[in-house]
Amino acid sequence: MFEVVGEDENARAGKLHTAHGTVDTPCFMPVATKGSVKTLSSDELGDMDIEAIISNAFVLYLKPGIDVIEKAGGLHRFMNWDRTLFTDSGGFQMLKKEFVFNVSEKGVMFRSPFDDTRHMFTPEKCVEVQEVLESDVVMVLDDCPPYGKDHKHMRDSIMRTTNWAKRSKVAHKHKKQLLFAIVQGGVFRNLREKSATSLVEMDFDGYGIGGLSIGETRKKMFEVLEYTLPLLPEEKPRYLMGVGSPGELLESISLGVDIFDSAFPTRNARHNAVYTWNGSYNITRGKYTNDFSPLEEGCNCYACQKYTRAYVRHLMVVYEMLGMRLITIHNLHFLRELMRKTRETVLENRFSKFKKEFNKIMGLCQ
Amino acid sequence: MFEVVGEDENARAGKLHTAHGTVDTPCFMPVATKGSVKTLSSDELGDMDIEAIISNAFVLYLKPGIDVIEKAGGLHRFMNWDRTLFTDSGGFQMLKKEFVFNVSEKGVMFRSPFDDTRHMFTPEKCVEVQEVLESDVVMVLDDCPPYGKDHKHMRDSIMRTTNWAKRSKVAHKHKKQLLFAIVQGGVFRNLREKSATSLVEMDFDGYGIGGLSIGETRKKMFEVLEYTLPLLPEEKPRYLMGVGSPGELLESISLGVDIFDSAFPTRNARHNAVYTWNGSYNITRGKYTNDFSPLEEGCNCYACQKYTRAYVRHLMVVYEMLGMRLITIHNLHFLRELMRKTRETVLENRFSKFKKEFNKIMGLCQ
Repeated sequence: MFEVVGEDENARAGKLHTAHGTVDTPCFMPVATKGSVKTLSSDELGDMDIEAIISNAFVLYLKPGIDVIEKAGGLHRFMNWDRTLFTDSGGFQMLKKEFVFNVSEKGVMFRSPFDDTRHMFTPEKCVEVQEVLESDVVMVLDDCPPYGKDHKHMRDSIMRTTNWAKRSKVAHKHKKQLLFAIVQGGVFRNLREKSATSLVEMDFDGYGIGGLSIGETRKKMFEVLEYTLPLLPEEKPRYLMGVGSPGELLESISLGVDIFDSAFPTRNARHNAVYTWNGSYNITRGKYTNDFSPLEEGCNCYACQKYTRAYVRHLMVVYEMLGMRLITIHNLHFLRELMRKTRETVLENRFSKFKKEFNKIMGLCQ
Repeated sequence: MFEVVGEDENARAGKLHTAHGTVDTPCFMPVATKGSVKTLSSDELGDMDIEAIISNAFVLYLKPGIDVIEKAGGLHRFMNWDRTLFTDSGGFQMLKKEFVFNVSEKGVMFRSPFDDTRHMFTPEKCVEVQEVLESDVVMVLDDCPPYGKDHKHMRDSIMRTTNWAKRSKVAHKHKKQLLFAIVQGGVFRNLREKSATSLVEMDFDGYGIGGLSIGETRKKMFEVLEYTLPLLPEEKPRYLMGVGSPGELLESISLGVDIFDSAFPTRNARHNAVYTWNGSYNITRGKYTNDFSPLEEGCNCYACQKYTRAYVRHLMVVYEMLGMRLITIHNLHFLRELMRKTRETVLENRFSKFKKEFNKIMGLCQ
């Protein structure tokens, strides 16, 4: 279900085969938390050749409810998406205090932000929900504490994550769905190692790396990746959850990550940030008032083919939704192209040069 | 520039020829006040075969400023729209108290809602602004008082509107742009008559009917149309401004109106109202939770081809913008079809039967 088709030092080019097609890696997944990549139709994603997106089991369980999606014939049908679909478990939602009543060995007692009701999410329940959603890749329920918890707390947490992963594996019946475990352990090396090795022993279809990009420094994040990734089996896909910026993607790929997701490129689009090969910029700046070039010169995304900076700037200044759509399209197209080029350079053994040149222009912060 | 190609009692089917193509009438124009039909791209409007839209000179004058649109090469280019484009003058904005400092014979001193600055809009200035915008149909600046003003106020007001129309005609140089006057006079028959006859004497390319659907009863509105429309020349297009609902469109067409615009079908879309041949409904109602049929059975709009009520309902409930897009597409498609069928029935001399059947199902309120 996963093949590594090329390597350049630690960077990898691969193919992830799922029930809904093949995903070329490295791959960046747009986020469709509530069953929609914000502002876009599934056709627009398809037109950009986006091969995989990720939705959220817990959020969909609350609204519209999994009974609705079950009756629709699964999440693919419900949202009219016919390519690869990941679903996250809900573990990440534990980072939001207002979403959680308490966590026990049994599972997480979530609080619905919609109506304050309580919902027990056990690892088994979480697999079951995702079976109903019929996503192609199921993420196990993990215990994801906020950044800054002490070693003891984090040690208990990874034990729980490991136990939950074990229970998830037992509960996992629909074998055409891939099941990914999630490595936790915060910024503690021995805990990350313990978490990774115990999960790898259980032999999952792939491994998420969770609990990063949640407050630790960027340097620390790469340090964690550097010692965690070598512990994961080479023949399995590695998915860094919740990352991130173009610079972070390339750096993480150089350490051996295959798959990413993040709400930033789409959220930033709605806050005026346009990604380009020369860095990002805020479209509402005065200098774009009379700029009738496209969002990025030479880009062949829909927004750049049809509209100018001056127009998109105007739309954003007067809060017209079309502006958000156009920048979202551009940013996702940019990341798709970035992943495509990255893959090419890995296959041609010139990735580190590519990354170096990219960083010279963009920096990690971009 | 306008031909009546068919008549059925007072209802008309026509062709309005503008610098950007031919508009079949009756025609409903979606509103692009700030240079964008909310949530949609110009391609989406084109795909629905929308032949004309209307934007607003005063609003665009404030933001992005006409210098920007002039540099872009006109509003068509700025917003990437290559079909017929009307621009309203700003007279309608006088209905919003907070937009106006004062009105004099000279013109309107507007207050910018963006930054509180003052902007003098004379009839000449208004024509000049629209020349820069290069719209296909220019609406003169009219004096549009709120509903409920007394006879004396309204009499002074139509005198002003007439004088302004005269000055607009003198100022109008770009003859490839059509110039429409606007009949005012509130709900006073003698004033409507005076306004209409004095404007008709000046021989404009078409006539707007303004100051309706602003608070008077629906019955009163049709009464006004009934005695005003016969005063307008048969060979010129008649444009009822700011109307409205499907039922109101048909009733107005039966009285001789050719062209309409209104923000309601798009605004209502963003507030969950779906238009259909069986009346409108609120998509967020519980009964649609598990309804996997399209927004309207048999409809061939993009939204109905691709998505279900259950999905659109979910999107609206969780405030996903794609939901607003999809309902906007559906509602505009519905009105486009309504105008197409109406035209067909006029050409085939069976309009009144069509209207009767439509009203039986929809009522005027729909």
